[in-house]
Amino acid sequence: MTIHAFAATEPKSTLTPYSFPKPVLTEGEVEIEVSHCGICHSDIHLIDDDWKMSRYPLVPGHEVVGTVRETGPGVTALKAGDRVGVGWQSASCGTCEWCASGQDQLCAKARPTCVGRPGGFADRLILSERFAFKLPGQLESEQAAPLMCAGITVFSPFRLYQVQTGMKVGVLGIGGLGHLAIQFSRKMGFETTAISGSPDKEREALELGAHQFIATSDPAALRAKANSFDFILSTVSASLDWNPFVSMLRPNGKLCFVGATGGSISIPTGVLLSKQKSICGSNIGGTKMIREMLEFAAGHGVKAKTEVLPMAEVNSAVSKVRENKARYRMVLKNQ
Amino acid sequence: MTIHAFAATEPKSTLTPYSFPKPVLTEGEVEIEVSHCGICHSDIHLIDDDWKMSRYPLVPGHEVVGTVRETGPGVTALKAGDRVGVGWQSASCGTCEWCASGQDQLCAKARPTCVGRPGGFADRLILSERFAFKLPGQLESEQAAPLMCAGITVFSPFRLYQVQTGMKVGVLGIGGLGHLAIQFSRKMGFETTAISGSPDKEREALELGAHQFIATSDPAALRAKANSFDFILSTVSASLDWNPFVSMLRPNGKLCFVGATGGSISIPTGVLLSKQKSICGSNIGGTKMIREMLEFAAGHGVKAKTEVLPMAEVNSAVSKVRENKARYRMVLKNQ
Repeated sequence: MTIHAFAATEPKSTLTPYSFPKPVLTEGEVEIEVSHCGICHSDIHLIDDDWKMSRYPLVPGHEVVGTVRETGPGVTALKAGDRVGVGWQSASCGTCEWCASGQDQLCAKARPTCVGRPGGFADRLILSERFAFKLPGQLESEQAAPLMCAGITVFSPFRLYQVQTGMKVGVLGIGGLGHLAIQFSRKMGFETTAISGSPDKEREALELGAHQFIATSDPAALRAKANSFDFILSTVSASLDWNPFVSMLRPNGKLCFVGATGGSISIPTGVLLSKQKSICGSNIGGTKMIREMLEFAAGHGVKAKTEVLPMAEVNSAVSKVRENKARYRMVLKNQ
Repeated sequence: MTIHAFAATEPKSTLTPYSFPKPVLTEGEVEIEVSHCGICHSDIHLIDDDWKMSRYPLVPGHEVVGTVRETGPGVTALKAGDRVGVGWQSASCGTCEWCASGQDQLCAKARPTCVGRPGGFADRLILSERFAFKLPGQLESEQAAPLMCAGITVFSPFRLYQVQTGMKVGVLGIGGLGHLAIQFSRKMGFETTAISGSPDKEREALELGAHQFIATSDPAALRAKANSFDFILSTVSASLDWNPFVSMLRPNGKLCFVGATGGSISIPTGVLLSKQKSICGSNIGGTKMIREMLEFAAGHGVKAKTEVLPMAEVNSAVSKVRENKARYRMVLKNQ
């Protein structure tokens, strides 16, 4: 059998059809018939080789939803017919302290889904059952796909940094990540403020659940919010002057990065000391957290806002992501 | 009655005798006959007006041990004859969320012991009973004095940032703060590494309880410790290149500042993100934590290493602190 995919053949190239023989399933592997695959900014970085880790032909895609069609030897948790989701990670050692505590994303042998192996812009995906997660029935496939990377990326930090009921949360950036972060934050019971450079997103931010909206273009509005937040989640990929956001933290407050800015943060250590503030980061989430996120999203109605295009129109969809025109997540669908 | 103290009369001046009438005790205040007072680097900063908050004549001193001699109206927790300790903080509002949770040091109305009011380089100190703590009998007064500021400063971050049994701790800097941090860390059950720019302190660091010692002057030794620590407590006041120390953190690791460096930290946000690292700070400790610290120090034999001089020799003692020659804390004693 042949797997039909779309691949970049060199950095920054458009994607072209790419076929390869289906490999024999090895121990613990499952074959998934891909129904949907979201497009994440990381896919663009991989296509462009921004992180100097890409190998070509490169089949992007790591927000995958599909149905198990075949199971390899030793598979126990999944069976043919199960609807599953797959995210950024496809492998880890399985035995280190991080894997043993469900924080597999911190394993030194953690491997991505679409680097050095074909990803989800395809009709089939083969990977270890450990990184394919059964989806709760309430989640629509096209809304579930973006949860597998964008969703877990913004769900995990609230748990990792122990944000508590009643705390005041700022979500910086309203895009693929931020529009999910606003929903999770509100539905976890946090007072939620959307902070964005796009004033035209205010209405939608409030509809997503934000209690209020602040435009970063208004320095006075930022200053007025000094000492206001217990937790600010930065989902932006731009490199900003972070000092105003550190000032917006209350005592014991944390500024957490989940957006890969590529830049640095420079902060006087005295500012961190006097009010016990933290600057921190969170990296997707481990297998334990992914299961928890899926249950939470299903139980509380967290839904990605998606625009769905057929897999064949992958280049149009990628262009929209490149131009930041997605509202808020492009999802490819196999017909 | 007259209070006899030593005061700076202008920035960077030597200290000279300074007397003033004992004020009438107001609601909740106690009068303490000072027996011992430690000298902290903050006292030097106040004498020199480095923080632009000093008022002269300035009576330094905020590591005070003494005996309650008189109690004002409404005092309930203390009585004449009680041996008490007093640290950096002398007042807070008493009603805000931070005060209500024993984190009084984060109160917006928190006031120091020796800014805008006379401190402990004196024979008497008057302040609210809320910030005078009964000392466990096992603690010698000259060893207890440095616990009141240096001790709580390095005890609190282990609790605040939830350092857990078995974690690997680095203590950066072996001075007034660091020599207590090594003891607390070891006695809390953490694998403890002393990290210092002074190779001649190795033997003493091991005697204080460190499992091992690393010299910061050896870049290869620092590189060899990449990915080694869950928590690094920086007690130094110098501004260093912090990137090697962030590299020394394991996944989920934290670099915590308690030393006021006056400088900034500049770190690529991607480094924080990928391994979920934190840069944070801790500010003395609240009333709840101070009580806990005193019980811990008494129960586990944490002792400041001190050099005691008579109060009259205050200028010699201050000079030793200025020149970083104290091993490890100068303590003034009233005869």
